Amino acid sequence: MYNTHGGSGAPFRAHQAMGRGVEFDTIRTLLARWGDLAVDIGDDAAVLPAVSDGQRVVSTDACVEDVHFRRAWLTPYQVGHRAAAAALSDLAAMGARADCMLVAFIVPESWQADLAEVADGIGAQVRAAGARIVGGNLSRGRVFAITLTVIGVAERVVSRRGAAVGDLVLVTGVLGGPGAALAAWERGESPPPWALSRFVAPVPRLAAGRALAAAGATAMLDISDGLAADARHLGAASGVRLAIDPATLPVGTGVSPSSALLSGEEYELLVTMPRGAFEVLARHWEAREDIPLTVIGTVEQAAGDHAIDETAGHDHFRPGQL
Amino acid sequence: MYNTHGGSGAPFRAHQAMGRGVEFDTIRTLLARWGDLAVDIGDDAAVLPAVSDGQRVVSTDACVEDVHFRRAWLTPYQVGHRAAAAALSDLAAMGARADCMLVAFIVPESWQADLAEVADGIGAQVRAAGARIVGGNLSRGRVFAITLTVIGVAERVVSRRGAAVGDLVLVTGVLGGPGAALAAWERGESPPPWALSRFVAPVPRLAAGRALAAAGATAMLDISDGLAADARHLGAASGVRLAIDPATLPVGTGVSPSSALLSGEEYELLVTMPRGAFEVLARHWEAREDIPLTVIGTVEQAAGDHAIDETAGHDHFRPGQL
Repeated sequence: MYNTHGGSGAPFRAHQAMGRGVEFDTIRTLLARWGDLAVDIGDDAAVLPAVSDGQRVVSTDACVEDVHFRRAWLTPYQVGHRAAAAALSDLAAMGARADCMLVAFIVPESWQADLAEVADGIGAQVRAAGARIVGGNLSRGRVFAITLTVIGVAERVVSRRGAAVGDLVLVTGVLGGPGAALAAWERGESPPPWALSRFVAPVPRLAAGRALAAAGATAMLDISDGLAADARHLGAASGVRLAIDPATLPVGTGVSPSSALLSGEEYELLVTMPRGAFEVLARHWEAREDIPLTVIGTVEQAAGDHAIDETAGHDHFRPGQL
Repeated sequence: MYNTHGGSGAPFRAHQAMGRGVEFDTIRTLLARWGDLAVDIGDDAAVLPAVSDGQRVVSTDACVEDVHFRRAWLTPYQVGHRAAAAALSDLAAMGARADCMLVAFIVPESWQADLAEVADGIGAQVRAAGARIVGGNLSRGRVFAITLTVIGVAERVVSRRGAAVGDLVLVTGVLGGPGAALAAWERGESPPPWALSRFVAPVPRLAAGRALAAAGATAMLDISDGLAADARHLGAASGVRLAIDPATLPVGTGVSPSSALLSGEEYELLVTMPRGAFEVLARHWEAREDIPLTVIGTVEQAAGDHAIDETAGHDHFRPGQL
């Protein structure tokens, strides 16, 4: 299904700049750009294929202009690409493969001409993830927003609740890029290329997430709020304390450990795992995955409400997922 | 999972009115209002329960201030209630029961105080449908919007594509209320109570949709764009022509058949079904369902691009679902 609302209909004629023809043309354009990525669009709801290799998982994620990005920072393609990466990252954090996506757009007149490029950016992520677009919604509105619902399949679901005392704490990738990019923009400077790339084109760690789940990860999340805040979230959900050694953090060029702890929207995975399971996994990680996997701490007994405040930096960072 | 974005974090400090505490408080408020309706919130994605009684279906639907409603027309409770009805109606149109919902809010400062009431309205629909809220997203933004993803289970999926020549065309309920309400508002008048109620509190026809599917419906959709437009959509999807007799339309007090053909956002079901199947169903319909089911036409061979233009009214109405 692809719902369209806010056309030239009676309810809000005064608010409708997009005529009926424009709306249908827009949907045709989207479907043409997506090609074989968009399947079975046309009913009130999409039928999900039956799966026998795991449990279905689902998440929804919004990307709103001037909240999650500024238009001057990203091309329309990058806006779509980044929004889709952020949504797919939630599936990675569950140890799931991506299966289906629903794409809901709110489109002001000023974005109309750029929508096809946004769609291309989304489509590229969907294609890379091996998923399909099974539906969506198109609405007028005064602010550009994309709300993506992603549906996946997890052979072994990893929640945030299973971290056990004695587990190692691991992180994928290299941290600090998005924070460094935003700090540069806030100073009126251009971000260094590596940091810009990490902000503009985050990679959902879908393959790594599945590998970590299969290897015995006990808890996992994707770092959207900054490592310090997300470590608190994972610790709280599991009833433990994540003791992280800042000196061990894998950081980008010129990034301090304390900045890396606070850098949000990393979309890297924070994972806990028994030491033995990690040692087995580590033997083959480099040959199979193209990102580092770094031990950054251990899981300890919780000790009060703010157990990891010593590594958490301040409280001013982007709040995390509940 | 319940994602929160747009807090007091570094990336967009200048754009953030909602502090971190406010965001977490908001999510706590939402979860408290939803109570046992909201389950397993807290991971990056929600695990869908396995189903053995049918196929999973999914749809996403947005409700945007000043596009789908004006704030002066609806209480916050009604905004949530109506948005949820519209989303659930897509499941009804597939012959599905409702199972899970994900709720994504974009919330300007000016709506913050009303959000709990909006949540109550959504919750009431979710409860009535026997569904649960399994996740969502909370974001700041300059325009209030709700994007709802609904997930259901259809024992027998009914698409838009199965209408066959000779089938009867049926419609549930009484048409014309939302159109009459909007027309009154546009004249600066108060809508008649029955019409207001149809606009403010549409009912997703979930039980009727399942009954129609089980009885042998060949094609079905929910009337969101007006009967005339939606009949064209269903006919086009099925490669047939829906010949509708305007004189047979079940209309509300004072509504002309031509107005009823154009009244959108009815969320009643338009259905095709073999005559024999209908005759069996009709014997028990009144005893089991609390809304009328009316024969309004027959399915005929398609005859050109605009086969039902004679009943379609003009083209200026809200475009439908593709």
